[in-house]
Amino acid sequence: MRVEVILSPGEVEHHDLAGRVCVIIDVFRFTTTVLTALEAGLERFYPVEEVEEAFRLKQANPTLLLAGERNALKVPGFDFGNSPLEHAGKSYSGGGLVFTTTNGTRAVRAAQGAGEVVLACLRSAPAVAAYLRERGRDVVLLPAGLEGKFSLEDTWCAGCLASLLPAEEYGDGAKAALLVYEHTPREELAHSAHGRRLQALGLWEDLRFCLEYGVSPGVVVWDKDTGWGALARER
Amino acid sequence: MRVEVILSPGEVEHHDLAGRVCVIIDVFRFTTTVLTALEAGLERFYPVEEVEEAFRLKQANPTLLLAGERNALKVPGFDFGNSPLEHAGKSYSGGGLVFTTTNGTRAVRAAQGAGEVVLACLRSAPAVAAYLRERGRDVVLLPAGLEGKFSLEDTWCAGCLASLLPAEEYGDGAKAALLVYEHTPREELAHSAHGRRLQALGLWEDLRFCLEYGVSPGVVVWDKDTGWGALARER
Repeated sequence: MRVEVILSPGEVEHHDLAGRVCVIIDVFRFTTTVLTALEAGLERFYPVEEVEEAFRLKQANPTLLLAGERNALKVPGFDFGNSPLEHAGKSYSGGGLVFTTTNGTRAVRAAQGAGEVVLACLRSAPAVAAYLRERGRDVVLLPAGLEGKFSLEDTWCAGCLASLLPAEEYGDGAKAALLVYEHTPREELAHSAHGRRLQALGLWEDLRFCLEYGVSPGVVVWDKDTGWGALARER
Repeated sequence: MRVEVILSPGEVEHHDLAGRVCVIIDVFRFTTTVLTALEAGLERFYPVEEVEEAFRLKQANPTLLLAGERNALKVPGFDFGNSPLEHAGKSYSGGGLVFTTTNGTRAVRAAQGAGEVVLACLRSAPAVAAYLRERGRDVVLLPAGLEGKFSLEDTWCAGCLASLLPAEEYGDGAKAALLVYEHTPREELAHSAHGRRLQALGLWEDLRFCLEYGVSPGVVVWDKDTGWGALARER
């Protein structure tokens, strides 16, 4: 198994994803929130890049729920923002969630050329690693970053996943991510550029929740053909 | 002084360079070769993105020399490739060098919005750090990367420079580069993706030369207004 980490979202176009599993990581907060919403019972999610597209989808199918943020704030008229706490402890009976965020949903769409697309966060990292080990394919980890820029917490999570995989070969990006993981205490991630932005908005509980490690068995898989994602079923 | 490292060349557009010193790093081999050519007596260099532009400039001014590579190989019809060994130990009496490479010259042009643009390599890293300390401005370090992708050796050099600067604040990218620098032995850089490519071409002496640390007092500065670069004079 070859493991690479794409350290910056703008690099995706320079990497060959064909036949590989691409893992999207947006710890603060998209991939954490999607996992939490699906574990609370929503059946599936649909990432879109633009707010207008979300409203159009809801117009065509009013049962859909809309979630998303712009600059960390809930989009006006949406059912949810991008906080996992809106879903934690809830119990939905199915339903579809259309999701748009500044960084994460774009990264999912950018991975369209991969053989398979998986979402990961700190809460699900060991479960995702187990899933990837079972698949046995080459893995490309894609930290979603912050507005096109490198993100410390997403790269930390990528390095963590890389460390849990039986890699015969790590790419240069994976080597750097492993160093970030090995030498940065997890608590320090709350003070990354993105972490400080959430702190400034008073979102301490979101930070705490997103930084919990390995507490979820859920693996979120996105089907690029239908555009819908859901929890992986049988493993 | 604030110090940031842009880990991937595609990220430049998302960073604000205005008023800052942007340091271009292309250890294998552009910034090493430019430094070596200027120290051998060439007066100035002019980075261009396209081979055709280099030929046009020479047609207008036949005294110009052309240097450059595509995929690590010398461009046919050029005076030089991109090896520092073509200039090491030479003694030129002035002259202008037009330069085009796959990664480095693009990075220089991408830094056009910065307050000042400096070139660095391992050979000149301590000298460049001293220059930056004197300037006292915020610094953005830009590893040129390999075909749009993260590069271990350029990031290592950026982390090394970051460690030599009196930063009050390191950005997330700088923190990662510092870890790469602190935990990767310099010899290992010969086995980076780019290093292995040069090995495959038998360019062991180039690798050895490019990986020599701190042996040069030269600081190369690029003037974005004229498009020409030269060794910094008085310091």
